[in-house]
Amino acid sequence: MFKEYQHLRIPGPTPVSPEVQRAMDRTILGHRSGAFSEIFAQTCEKAKYVFQTKEDVFILASTGTGALEAAVANVVEPNDKVLVLVTGVFGERFVKIAKAYGANVMTLKFDLGTTAKPETVKEVLQQNPDIKAVFLTHCETSTAVVNPVEKIGNIVKDTDALLIVDSVSALVGMDLKMDDWDVDIAVTASHKAIGLPPGLALVCVSQKAWKVIEKHKGPKFYFDLLAYRKKIKDRTTPYTGPVSLVYGLSKSLDLIKEEGLENGFKRHQLIRDMVRAAVKALNLELFVQEEEAASCTVTAIKGNNQLDVEQLRKILREDYKVEVAGGQQDLKGKIFRIGHLGYIHPLDILTTISALEMALKQIGYPISLGAGIKAAEEVWCNDKNIG
Amino acid sequence: MFKEYQHLRIPGPTPVSPEVQRAMDRTILGHRSGAFSEIFAQTCEKAKYVFQTKEDVFILASTGTGALEAAVANVVEPNDKVLVLVTGVFGERFVKIAKAYGANVMTLKFDLGTTAKPETVKEVLQQNPDIKAVFLTHCETSTAVVNPVEKIGNIVKDTDALLIVDSVSALVGMDLKMDDWDVDIAVTASHKAIGLPPGLALVCVSQKAWKVIEKHKGPKFYFDLLAYRKKIKDRTTPYTGPVSLVYGLSKSLDLIKEEGLENGFKRHQLIRDMVRAAVKALNLELFVQEEEAASCTVTAIKGNNQLDVEQLRKILREDYKVEVAGGQQDLKGKIFRIGHLGYIHPLDILTTISALEMALKQIGYPISLGAGIKAAEEVWCNDKNIG
Amino acid sequence: MFKEYQHLRIPGPTPVSPEVQRAMDRTILGHRSGAFSEIFAQTCEKAKYVFQTKEDVFILASTGTGALEAAVANVVEPNDKVLVLVTGVFGERFVKIAKAYGANVMTLKFDLGTTAKPETVKEVLQQNPDIKAVFLTHCETSTAVVNPVEKIGNIVKDTDALLIVDSVSALVGMDLKMDDWDVDIAVTASHKAIGLPPGLALVCVSQKAWKVIEKHKGPKFYFDLLAYRKKIKDRTTPYTGPVSLVYGLSKSLDLIKEEGLENGFKRHQLIRDMVRAAVKALNLELFVQEEEAASCTVTAIKGNNQLDVEQLRKILREDYKVEVAGGQQDLKGKIFRIGHLGYIHPLDILTTISALEMALKQIGYPISLGAGIKAAEEVWCNDKNIG
Amino acid sequence: MFKEYQHLRIPGPTPVSPEVQRAMDRTILGHRSGAFSEIFAQTCEKAKYVFQTKEDVFILASTGTGALEAAVANVVEPNDKVLVLVTGVFGERFVKIAKAYGANVMTLKFDLGTTAKPETVKEVLQQNPDIKAVFLTHCETSTAVVNPVEKIGNIVKDTDALLIVDSVSALVGMDLKMDDWDVDIAVTASHKAIGLPPGLALVCVSQKAWKVIEKHKGPKFYFDLLAYRKKIKDRTTPYTGPVSLVYGLSKSLDLIKEEGLENGFKRHQLIRDMVRAAVKALNLELFVQEEEAASCTVTAIKGNNQLDVEQLRKILREDYKVEVAGGQQDLKGKIFRIGHLGYIHPLDILTTISALEMALKQIGYPISLGAGIKAAEEVWCNDKNIG
Repeated sequence: MFKEYQHLRIPGPTPVSPEVQRAMDRTILGHRSGAFSEIFAQTCEKAKYVFQTKEDVFILASTGTGALEAAVANVVEPNDKVLVLVTGVFGERFVKIAKAYGANVMTLKFDLGTTAKPETVKEVLQQNPDIKAVFLTHCETSTAVVNPVEKIGNIVKDTDALLIVDSVSALVGMDLKMDDWDVDIAVTASHKAIGLPPGLALVCVSQKAWKVIEKHKGPKFYFDLLAYRKKIKDRTTPYTGPVSLVYGLSKSLDLIKEEGLENGFKRHQLIRDMVRAAVKALNLELFVQEEEAASCTVTAIKGNNQLDVEQLRKILREDYKVEVAGGQQDLKGKIFRIGHLGYIHPLDILTTISALEMALKQIGYPISLGAGIKAAEEVWCNDKNIG
Repeated sequence: MFKEYQHLRIPGPTPVSPEVQRAMDRTILGHRSGAFSEIFAQTCEKAKYVFQTKEDVFILASTGTGALEAAVANVVEPNDKVLVLVTGVFGERFVKIAKAYGANVMTLKFDLGTTAKPETVKEVLQQNPDIKAVFLTHCETSTAVVNPVEKIGNIVKDTDALLIVDSVSALVGMDLKMDDWDVDIAVTASHKAIGLPPGLALVCVSQKAWKVIEKHKGPKFYFDLLAYRKKIKDRTTPYTGPVSLVYGLSKSLDLIKEEGLENGFKRHQLIRDMVRAAVKALNLELFVQEEEAASCTVTAIKGNNQLDVEQLRKILREDYKVEVAGGQQDLKGKIFRIGHLGYIHPLDILTTISALEMALKQIGYPISLGAGIKAAEEVWCNDKNIG
Repeated sequence: MFKEYQHLRIPGPTPVSPEVQRAMDRTILGHRSGAFSEIFAQTCEKAKYVFQTKEDVFILASTGTGALEAAVANVVEPNDKVLVLVTGVFGERFVKIAKAYGANVMTLKFDLGTTAKPETVKEVLQQNPDIKAVFLTHCETSTAVVNPVEKIGNIVKDTDALLIVDSVSALVGMDLKMDDWDVDIAVTASHKAIGLPPGLALVCVSQKAWKVIEKHKGPKFYFDLLAYRKKIKDRTTPYTGPVSLVYGLSKSLDLIKEEGLENGFKRHQLIRDMVRAAVKALNLELFVQEEEAASCTVTAIKGNNQLDVEQLRKILREDYKVEVAGGQQDLKGKIFRIGHLGYIHPLDILTTISALEMALKQIGYPISLGAGIKAAEEVWCNDKNIG
Repeated sequence: MFKEYQHLRIPGPTPVSPEVQRAMDRTILGHRSGAFSEIFAQTCEKAKYVFQTKEDVFILASTGTGALEAAVANVVEPNDKVLVLVTGVFGERFVKIAKAYGANVMTLKFDLGTTAKPETVKEVLQQNPDIKAVFLTHCETSTAVVNPVEKIGNIVKDTDALLIVDSVSALVGMDLKMDDWDVDIAVTASHKAIGLPPGLALVCVSQKAWKVIEKHKGPKFYFDLLAYRKKIKDRTTPYTGPVSLVYGLSKSLDLIKEEGLENGFKRHQLIRDMVRAAVKALNLELFVQEEEAASCTVTAIKGNNQLDVEQLRKILREDYKVEVAGGQQDLKGKIFRIGHLGYIHPLDILTTISALEMALKQIGYPISLGAGIKAAEEVWCNDKNIG
């Protein structure tokens, strides 16, 4: 009866709303047909809203890492000096990709669970005026921190460097003002706060970045952004577009517009605050201490000697049908992560917290049943000015 | 974003599982085609499991009331004496239908919120050996009581009367042993514990009942059970069958079999116990006091002078996306009812309870946030032998 | 690969468009919820367009025969004299239902394959001024004739009798002007030209009919039209409505409006003309000779001593995935019938004709491959003023 | 009514079967969850059947061009000598990608509409023993030829060069024996004969190719096949997999297995033969003269001074809802192409031919209506030994 039943609370893929699911069921159109071009062009146009930009937004048939590679492969030439701000696994991924493309990579590593420090970035840029690009992870999914994109944008804009932002697990869940914050390339993916299945990525490029890209030499084809720019004028993609995901994206962007980006951000923040309050009330420790540094799309929680996080995850999954993420790499076994982005209502996080209470009880962790819910509900009540 | 999002917690229609939803999307077949006959015949066969019977189960294209009418229209002739056990609105519905068909209706009314009393039934039957049929509501949806079908079956079987049971909101959620309990006609509908959309009803008939039906004279056509019996041998229906709902029923019966009827009953009972514990912990009053009388598929909760149930329902619906039912007829404004049948996991009732806590807080009802959840989780923990 | 692949060319159920299919996948709402009432009320309103009426249209959770019974059960009292115009199986069905309700049934039988004759009806009505109702089948699905509703309406309107029309397999496919043609009760069903799965029926009632219904006494409950009239004011149904089919109906009515009723009639007529031309070109004999009498929604074709229609149907089904209907009752084995109503494009009938050519070849019937297509295409070309 | 109605007859994307469509609607699972890993591993295993291989098959979240790039990016280093056999646009695409990766590209161009000549390939390889890889397009979609993969495989296997085959629009529609024919890398995509929406690609690699790939140096990340090989052992992908397309692929591979690859090849060939016969009967000229060179998945037809192919395509699309492809690059305006691959039944091609006849008539092209159908039906009859 409940084989397919689940509460998917990982930081992507995320649940798909029934509206988006049905939109994707539309009969497949030829990717070069006029009927599809119409849908495609409208969707690209609607995507500008979520990047808060007047620049074109490009649709790639790939998942997020493909879009990260696009950001590197169109900018970086062998021996180019680039600066990667590393706050976790996805910062490291930028390092790996940049190295794969022959970059001379400088890294600034920040303690896991903390954010990149703008002032340090400023110093490094001053000392290295030849840095071609700064790579920043907006939400570092592996640690659940949100990096200060605006502040770093403010610094990078006065240099020749491009600011390249991985907003895969942040965009739509947290504020990103492509234009106002002087971001040069921002990328995201379909299966995060946008609420589609995986397989589609979005890339947005500033005028400053285009100047670099136009001069760029180096191996690239599928992810060659100039090819996408050329074809978007004809309301199409250079290669076959992911037709059914575009249908879904079109609908998803309508739903996001209807809610309003700002309201969506507030919803994500409320849910984060509910999770954090519940976590504390259940005698658990948050991995990201600082409120400001805590992502609104994912929360990381520490294990301890009474709490085997992998055992907890197994119980949550098998006995309560709640799927949460574990730690990655160095954090494996040390934390677990609750994703709360995209098509998620505050009620859904209460369900997760209930399951968490039961599972903690089940492994003998010292908690009071109901304590997490009480704390989370109080946050919601305050938010609604109740009581 | 959340226009279509909801937690449907009324006593039917109920949520449809994704498996069943997809099953209904299958391409429409001709209702007389061999391919459909195959599916139809298998589905009828599988339906015997849920009635715990070896008799045929008939599929009608109607909702539950149509099936109630079928039970009357095939048995009752003008001036026949029938006994209706009335425990609420759906008992009254049997009265109305029987009167529409010219019956001489005796009613035994029991206080709302209590069950039919077998001993009283016994007396009346002894005093009225000419009673042709006894009509009983298995779960009286309007008050959330479950009537003692087995005990009444034990009494009626020794008379000439037929026992006709409306198990619309009970079957699959609570035990009904058609054969062992000597039920003569039992009916149910698709949109209750079976978990389909409305539009399909099931009717099961004992050999004792067939003898009466075969002699029956009176106006009936669409609901003429002899026509259905004749056609089921040819693996079809007398009139067009509800093809897509049959696809869904076939899948639903598979899922029910897979879980096991007994396990399903336990799940419904656990959920009932969780709701009742939460209700008490939230200083609310249950409409059905006696534990044994409390339905496992729906729970009724009283309003009071601090609790306007219609206001509560509005807040639950608008602010928390939880749809619960109000009272019907005499109970309108006096109770609200939480449906918990069909495709519902214990976690889902925790979501409902969370919403209830918040909504109660919002209208100023004196509760402690988290108290309902704590009580409900304790019930679940006990059930799992945790803690 | 092609297990589910088929061309469903029977006179109902009919293929469901992808738009309607997706509409029915919408999350189930409570049947008494405000959100559903909104959809329900709009749908009832939109349904007036297809009946070409200003009267209310009622939605029943049943298939077509249930609606036929509703038309009888609300009008006919025991011994009432009624006139049934019988042109085939569905005329006979009215006879059976009326008899089941105790009517004194006069029948006018017309040769199979011909229509009811208005002048005869006129005579009978003049001779029998006590006739309470005239029952007429709009499209007699079993023979593929279309009866002259307008002319008969013109006659009946000047009498006290009601004109009750079974437009199950006609409405939306052929013209029916409820108000202008003085029809008193018209019924149809979801799985015909409306293009939904089976399980929903529509009934429309004139003011003249309401006067009779209001005085009617007799057993009825599920199909009691006064109960429906009372509840439609509250934007709901007396018993649970078929929620998901209503979603589909709402979308289907939008698509019908978008095409325009008149355009839809022309499309059905074109397809009929294409079929008839092909049939002649393939040396087959039409069962309905007269062009005017030929239904636009279904075509019946005679077997002969070189053509075993049941063998042909088997080959069409098994080798060509085309499902056509056989003859019913007296016509079993003598004709086969091609349904062409609802969601059917002229191209689809060419597919059917191609399959028919191949299947005829396969059984050794003397035809020229391509001859049927040629004839059908010429009809279409003429219709488009090509060539 | 018919806005979404269409007959998609381009060489990809192709129609999606209802079974596959529903499979993709399954609730999204976490891409690292055990439940998804199970589905993923089974799907990879099932994919071996369609490549006729015992090697691993890798699933990429990209469309076909991404997979072509993967084949280049894992093999080619700057200045490597490679041979590209160019028979049209997709051969040219290999040239472009190889050049983007710095290869020293030799091209063998063959006249458009003809195939690569094995003997020429042999000579060139003998004269250039330092060729690292030979790139071959299995079905050259732009001209509708099928290249002799087996023969070329026979030649390349005795050299140090790898044979890299773009089987994007061929695999599953025409024979490709990865192992027996000594293909080293073969790639295909989801939206061709496999019958899914676009967004997923498959890559299969021989042991000979792995040896080259293991030593390969050069920029690659998202398409790094070693990363995929490493992760497939853990039943997962290096980056997020296209979850819903994998569900669809799993079902599609089941349907292909059920039909049997060989039967599927015959079906594609039959459909090709039907199209070619119809084309000739309609006084049109085939672009690929030689029968053996004609692809079974797409057919190209020449325009002439009485036949403006772009006008024809417009009429087919707008008046007959049939979408066919035009010519690409040099062939734009000179040919049109009918795709007939994947989820297509012989009946469907008759529909296309009917539409073509009507459209030709409409533009005044001298044809006899029905002639194309007659010819195509005769082919099918011969195939079935009818007549």
